[in-house]
Amino acid sequence: MALIMMRSVAMTRRGFFKLKRSSNGIRAFSSLLTSPPSKAVFYERHGPPDAVTRVIEMEGVEVKEKDVCVKMMAAPINPSDINRIEGVYPVRPPLPAVGGYEGVGEVLSVGSAVKHLSPGDWVIPSPPSSGTWQTYIVKEESVWHKISKDSPIEYAATITVNPLTALRMLQDFVTLNSGDCIVQNGATSIVGQCIIQLARLRGIHSINIIRDRVGSDEAKEMLKRLGADEVFTESQLEVKNIKGLLTNLPEPALGFNCVGGNSASLVLKFLRHGGTMVTYGGMSKKPITVSTSSFIFKDLSLRGFWLQKLMNSDKVNECRNLIDHLLCLARQGKLKYECVFVLQILSLFQSL
Amino acid sequence: MALIMMRSVAMTRRGFFKLKRSSNGIRAFSSLLTSPPSKAVFYERHGPPDAVTRVIEMEGVEVKEKDVCVKMMAAPINPSDINRIEGVYPVRPPLPAVGGYEGVGEVLSVGSAVKHLSPGDWVIPSPPSSGTWQTYIVKEESVWHKISKDSPIEYAATITVNPLTALRMLQDFVTLNSGDCIVQNGATSIVGQCIIQLARLRGIHSINIIRDRVGSDEAKEMLKRLGADEVFTESQLEVKNIKGLLTNLPEPALGFNCVGGNSASLVLKFLRHGGTMVTYGGMSKKPITVSTSSFIFKDLSLRGFWLQKLMNSDKVNECRNLIDHLLCLARQGKLKYECVFVLQILSLFQSL
Repeated sequence: MALIMMRSVAMTRRGFFKLKRSSNGIRAFSSLLTSPPSKAVFYERHGPPDAVTRVIEMEGVEVKEKDVCVKMMAAPINPSDINRIEGVYPVRPPLPAVGGYEGVGEVLSVGSAVKHLSPGDWVIPSPPSSGTWQTYIVKEESVWHKISKDSPIEYAATITVNPLTALRMLQDFVTLNSGDCIVQNGATSIVGQCIIQLARLRGIHSINIIRDRVGSDEAKEMLKRLGADEVFTESQLEVKNIKGLLTNLPEPALGFNCVGGNSASLVLKFLRHGGTMVTYGGMSKKPITVSTSSFIFKDLSLRGFWLQKLMNSDKVNECRNLIDHLLCLARQGKLKYECVFVLQILSLFQSL
Repeated sequence: MALIMMRSVAMTRRGFFKLKRSSNGIRAFSSLLTSPPSKAVFYERHGPPDAVTRVIEMEGVEVKEKDVCVKMMAAPINPSDINRIEGVYPVRPPLPAVGGYEGVGEVLSVGSAVKHLSPGDWVIPSPPSSGTWQTYIVKEESVWHKISKDSPIEYAATITVNPLTALRMLQDFVTLNSGDCIVQNGATSIVGQCIIQLARLRGIHSINIIRDRVGSDEAKEMLKRLGADEVFTESQLEVKNIKGLLTNLPEPALGFNCVGGNSASLVLKFLRHGGTMVTYGGMSKKPITVSTSSFIFKDLSLRGFWLQKLMNSDKVNECRNLIDHLLCLARQGKLKYECVFVLQILSLFQSL
C-alpha cells in the first residue's frame, strides 16, 4: 500500500472522512473538539485490495457533543474485509470507503454530552462497523463498547466477529447439553478453533474435519490441544460407515459448515436423525448438495448464519454481554486462537 | 396379479393373517367372533410389484373383545406403497406382508368391549397402517377413525396421506397469513393440487412449477381452475430474474419441493429472504444443490416433511381432526383431486 498524503478528500459519510472545513469557524472553537489528522487504508473503487487501496491522510474532523474520538490500536484483516474491498460482499460501505470492520482503540477525547466514556478507556465498535483501518475514528458514543483494559490487544481487536460467531452458532440453533456432540469442517479457522473451545467449556464434544494438506498432523495436534475430541482429514472419511469412526461419542445434533462441497456432505453424514447443519462460510466456493432422503427420512435441517444480519437486529446489547464473556475467557487463557492478520494500526502506519 | 387360494399361510403379525387354528376351540365359540375369509394382495419378498405380489385368500381371524372387523371398500396405490413392496422405503412392514397403507371400509362386526364403533360405520385406519389391500381387516378399535358416511368414497380412501401432507406442510413450518404466497414444484401431484386449494381457502397465493411435457397447457389450465395464481413450466423459468415474472404476487416465504434437481433450485430462487423450502419427495431422483450464499446472505432454511414420522408422534388425535376437516371440504366440493389409482377393493377381487 502506498502512503499518499491527501489533505482534502471529498467524502460523504460522516465519521469516516470530512471535507476540510476552512470557513465555518468550528475549528476556531477549541482544539479539543477536533480529532487529529488520521491515516487510513482507503479505496475509491472495488477490485483487488493491493490494486485499489492506498493509505491517505485525512483532516481531523469535529468531535460533536455526543461523539467520541478513538485512537485505533489494532484491527484485523478478516476475509470478509477483502471481499468488501473486492466488491463481492453483499453488504458494503458506499464508495469511497476505509477498509476494516472491527478493531480496538483508546478513547482520545469525548464530546460534552458523552456520559459513559472517558479518555484512556479502551473501546471496540460493537456492532462492528466499517472503517477500522485508520488511526483516529470519530463516531457517536453509542457505537463504542468499553472493554477491560487488561484484555490482550489481539483478542480485543478480533473478538466481535469470529469468536462471537462461534458462540452464537453454538447457542442459536439447537439446545445442546453437556455430553452432546457437534461436528464441523474448516476446523482450523478462527471460528472453528473457538467452537472447539467454547463447546468444551460446556462439556460438549467436537468432531472436526480438516483438509488434507502438508502439516495436517500438526493441525490435528493443535486442535486436540484446544480440546477437540476427534479430528479427521477429508480423505480419512472416505469410508462406507462414517459413524463407525465414532467410538465413544454420541451422534452430533448440530454441525457447522464453512467449506461447502464434499466437506459439507461429510458434516451431513455425521449428523444424527433430526440434526441441523449451519452454513457460515464457503471457502471451497462449491455448493452444498443434499439428497432428498436426508430431508425426508433423516429429517435434517439446513440453516445459515450471518453475524452482520444479527447485528442489525435488537441483539446488540445481548451481544455486548457475550463479548465481555468472551474477552473474560481470553484473559483467563480459556479461549485462544492465532491472529495472523491483525493489523497493528500504529506500527503499520509508522513503518510506512 | 394371480389369484392363488391359500388356506394356511404362516404369518406372525396379528391383524394381517392368522395361522389356521383348528385345535384350540375358539372358532367353536361363535361365528360372530371370527372375520370372514379375506382376499389380500400379498408378498413374501421385496421386488417389482408385478413379480412379487399375488392375491391370496386367508382364513378368517378371531375378532377379540377390543377388535373391529372392517370390510374394506377402497384403497389407493400410492408411490410409497410401491416403494414398500420394492423394499426401498425406509420403514416397511416385516415380510411376509399385505400391500397398501390407507383406505376406507365399513364396520362388519365389533368385539364386546368396543365402545364407539358399530356395524355399518365407515372407518379409515388413522394413522394409516400397512395391509389395506385386503377385503377384511381385524384390528383394535383404536386403529380406526369413524368418518361421515356421506364422504365420497375415493376421497375417504385417500385423505390420510396426500391431503393431510398438504395441510400439515402449510401449517407446520411457516406462519402464513392471507395475502401471503407459497411456491411449489410437482404441482400436478395430488399433494400439489391439495396445496393449491388449501392455500386458496386461506387467501394464500400459489406459484406452481410443472414439468415441460405434452399436455402442459392443459395441466396449467387444470391447476388454475383449482385456484393456482401462476403456473410455469421449468423451461419458462430459465430467465435471469425469476422474480421479475411475479407481477402482483409477494415473494413466497414458503416453498415445497417433491422433485429435486433443477426444479428444487427454481423453488429456492423464488423464495424470499429468510424463506423456507420443505422437501417431501424426490421424483427426479436428483439431489438438491444449494449455494453457500443462499444460506448465509439469503438466510434460507431447508427442511423435510415425512408424514409417517408425524404419525408416530403424539399428533394422532390432532390429525384425525384435520382429516375430518379435509373430508368436510371434499364433501363441499372445495377440495378436489383426481384419484387415478384407487383400488376398488371388492370390484377388483370380484373381477379376478
